[in-house]
Amino acid sequence: MRIIDIASAANPRLKRAKSLHQRRNRRKHQQILLEGERLIADSLSAGTPPALFFFTPEAEARYPQLLAQVAQTDAQLLRLPDHLFAHISDTVTPQGVLAVTPIPAIPPGDQGLVLILDGVRDPGNLGAILRTAAAAEVDQVIVLPGVTDPWSPKALRAGMGAHFRIAIRLASSSTDAKAWLDGYAIYFADAHAACLYTQVDWTPSSALILGGETEGARIIDLWPEVQPIAIPMARGVESLNVAVAGGVILYEAARQRRKE
Amino acid sequence: MRIIDIASAANPRLKRAKSLHQRRNRRKHQQILLEGERLIADSLSAGTPPALFFFTPEAEARYPQLLAQVAQTDAQLLRLPDHLFAHISDTVTPQGVLAVTPIPAIPPGDQGLVLILDGVRDPGNLGAILRTAAAAEVDQVIVLPGVTDPWSPKALRAGMGAHFRIAIRLASSSTDAKAWLDGYAIYFADAHAACLYTQVDWTPSSALILGGETEGARIIDLWPEVQPIAIPMARGVESLNVAVAGGVILYEAARQRRKE
Repeated sequence: MRIIDIASAANPRLKRAKSLHQRRNRRKHQQILLEGERLIADSLSAGTPPALFFFTPEAEARYPQLLAQVAQTDAQLLRLPDHLFAHISDTVTPQGVLAVTPIPAIPPGDQGLVLILDGVRDPGNLGAILRTAAAAEVDQVIVLPGVTDPWSPKALRAGMGAHFRIAIRLASSSTDAKAWLDGYAIYFADAHAACLYTQVDWTPSSALILGGETEGARIIDLWPEVQPIAIPMARGVESLNVAVAGGVILYEAARQRRKE
Repeated sequence: MRIIDIASAANPRLKRAKSLHQRRNRRKHQQILLEGERLIADSLSAGTPPALFFFTPEAEARYPQLLAQVAQTDAQLLRLPDHLFAHISDTVTPQGVLAVTPIPAIPPGDQGLVLILDGVRDPGNLGAILRTAAAAEVDQVIVLPGVTDPWSPKALRAGMGAHFRIAIRLASSSTDAKAWLDGYAIYFADAHAACLYTQVDWTPSSALILGGETEGARIIDLWPEVQPIAIPMARGVESLNVAVAGGVILYEAARQRRKE
């Protein structure tokens, strides 16, 4: 096991990792930061090994199995003291392990269930939505412009490994996204719609647009053929959390699909 | 409109409000803190007016309608400068309005759908669960010991008014809770159960136990007649966020009940 010790904040590998806290650098290098044992283990079991693996001496003693697993890949093993690890960590109480990993390339299917995200601003919510979509066997998630980056460290942590199990496509415009949806019936979750989500036949290829927490989705103005559907809510309740709303609708779709 | 100006941190009303940040004082006085325009407006429309209403001069100008509404109740109107408002506020960017309100007394029904919370630690999650339960027409929520206080300022904010629309009962022990559930079929959300949540007949009086995010619910050891039910999840996904899981199951119950 060949380990390189990093002793300076000027180390180019350390600087690369640090740069990936910024969205534009993640785009440029097509790499992301995975912090914590669980997320790194998830990426390994999904067949996406890291390019760089940073760890503190304490973490080396605490996670021998993870280290052994990473050592079997082509990853560079980089040991560094706590004060340098703090440069690249995004957590309050770091576990002392962090990987730089390529953005996973999971091919989207051409049928099934698609989730389209519009106006979701909170990375924690976005992660919870991806986790729900992966659990509900959603085929691909399309992320429209304006949505918080699904590849940010916070969204990755909240996703708890979902990012390695579901195809995530970033659309550069809603026109692009539309072109990917040829042949799909498209629905939009809207609290004020007359049609209930349970009245939809989810067995053909279907796409669900989930909107932001506060501003609502604007996509419906661009795509007039989209059908608004509502989750019924008790009087006085205005909305559900966007991840909860996604779970309710996607699992109704999954329930109908299981019956076939 | 009679307004009292508070100029000292030693003011007893200010001290009362400050004391309600602690759970034991909320219990003792049966009062809670509502911060922000929306939550206070929600409590008013639910018929739970405040005992004390604190506001800054800036908020007085910004929320004239709220002030007028509160002035029609028996609430004491208490104006105070920003630096004193900071003593009682729990938010990063305060709106400058805060109410001390009695804990709402909403009578629980004796049939329908019951949600039982065990081991939920995060106030944001708890609030999202209550919001979901209120939307799904849950009849009452039973909170077991060990769950984060549903009446904390954080849980209240995350509930977005749900606390004023649903009966919330704090059980002092699981034995107490059990006594409230005579005649109910009781289910426990468990990822490893053989029975799916969609295979349950939710039309009779039913109770659902939702467990904590990490440790799982211990209640099942105490109540052996409880039936574990699972939400099916794609391979590799271990769990859903507890509020999402609650939404999926409660809305399946609501779907079945609408059909009657």
